[in-house]
Amino acid sequence: MEIKIAVSKVKKYATRTSGDTVEIIERPNGGVSVVMADGQSSGRGAKWVSSFVVRKVISLLADGVRDGAAARAASDALFTERNGRVSATLNLLSADLQTNTLVITRNNPAPVLIAQDEEISCLDEDCKPIGLYRGTRPSITQIDLSVGLTVVIYTDGITHAGKRVGQPLDAFECLQVMLNDGEPTAQEIADSLLEYAPTLDQGRPADDTSVVVLRVTPEENNIIRRMTIDLPVRP
Amino acid sequence: MEIKIAVSKVKKYATRTSGDTVEIIERPNGGVSVVMADGQSSGRGAKWVSSFVVRKVISLLADGVRDGAAARAASDALFTERNGRVSATLNLLSADLQTNTLVITRNNPAPVLIAQDEEISCLDEDCKPIGLYRGTRPSITQIDLSVGLTVVIYTDGITHAGKRVGQPLDAFECLQVMLNDGEPTAQEIADSLLEYAPTLDQGRPADDTSVVVLRVTPEENNIIRRMTIDLPVRP
Repeated sequence: MEIKIAVSKVKKYATRTSGDTVEIIERPNGGVSVVMADGQSSGRGAKWVSSFVVRKVISLLADGVRDGAAARAASDALFTERNGRVSATLNLLSADLQTNTLVITRNNPAPVLIAQDEEISCLDEDCKPIGLYRGTRPSITQIDLSVGLTVVIYTDGITHAGKRVGQPLDAFECLQVMLNDGEPTAQEIADSLLEYAPTLDQGRPADDTSVVVLRVTPEENNIIRRMTIDLPVRP
Repeated sequence: MEIKIAVSKVKKYATRTSGDTVEIIERPNGGVSVVMADGQSSGRGAKWVSSFVVRKVISLLADGVRDGAAARAASDALFTERNGRVSATLNLLSADLQTNTLVITRNNPAPVLIAQDEEISCLDEDCKPIGLYRGTRPSITQIDLSVGLTVVIYTDGITHAGKRVGQPLDAFECLQVMLNDGEPTAQEIADSLLEYAPTLDQGRPADDTSVVVLRVTPEENNIIRRMTIDLPVRP
């Protein structure tokens, strides 16, 4: 089988810097982790917060620290650094090849969508962003990596998209339509959610928005591991 | 314009772990850096070395440290950690949006190919791997980011490929053919070099091999930043 991960990001209209940070890092015992944080507010201040959080987490994951402990550490570090005055949402999505499981770590009120083939469920139990309180705990879910699995995580740019114009984006419904229609790639799912959101906001994203999609596909004979980045540059 | 980066990796036939490590990280002042290291020998020992080196470099880059200083620090850290007994090759490829330049840092005897449109040149001045001596310096080249630029870096799996069967892979020639034939994507170039190398070695890669390709393309209106990973999983 093959694990395919796609990340698509836009920044808030007319800002220089996205307040979201997403990085992907190899796990020292096999597999990869995606770490996504959204810093409170927008612009440079938010970017500082989200990159502080993501750097803390990837450095711990690279040392072999388990995901839940890394999320707790990032929360305590942000709380200590900014005295509980600044929050960030944090998601970790780890394909752990030591246990052949997917570990989903949430400190983000936005739900996580999990589909097995076309059957979607939603992780939406209450959980808090990090940085505001001592002892904030993540919500952690562990599921087997098996063919047909799709997982979607996103920042609040998706949950807020279109609310301004009275047409809230229903990510669950979008994903359901795409899965019913065929075999979309991870990139197609991520782009559709993102492009639908800015469209609702009339081409000017109202917020920094990031979408991460992971799919497990049946490819058997590929031996090449691939990674790509497409980075638009404004003149 | 848009910067497109593709990484393709295979591991040596019948080993569990690649001794190469490649990570991509966002630069704190804008842009991205690719960090590629190849640890001496193969298997777990080599993996330890290459991930030690890459982690050191990405943590410094994330702090805003310039590329050359990060490479020197990684060399000194490896020298200190292993008493000069273990070496690694190291390449950094940074699209620096603060200066709109591409910064190429080499501690790798393998050359770097640079093409402007179809005109290829080769960075092959003498430079040493890191970790064996105090004070090892990288070779650094800085060029303007402009449409039509292609840069290819690779580990010695490419330079050694096919030597066993008397058909050494000529990466320069391969790239020239691809650029003359049309507009290959970064991914197509990386895959061609990699697939050609394992083919020469009869489908059983004789070494861990990694290829990184960066292209600057003329797209103007894309606002979505994208990142993908395809990770083959053996049962």
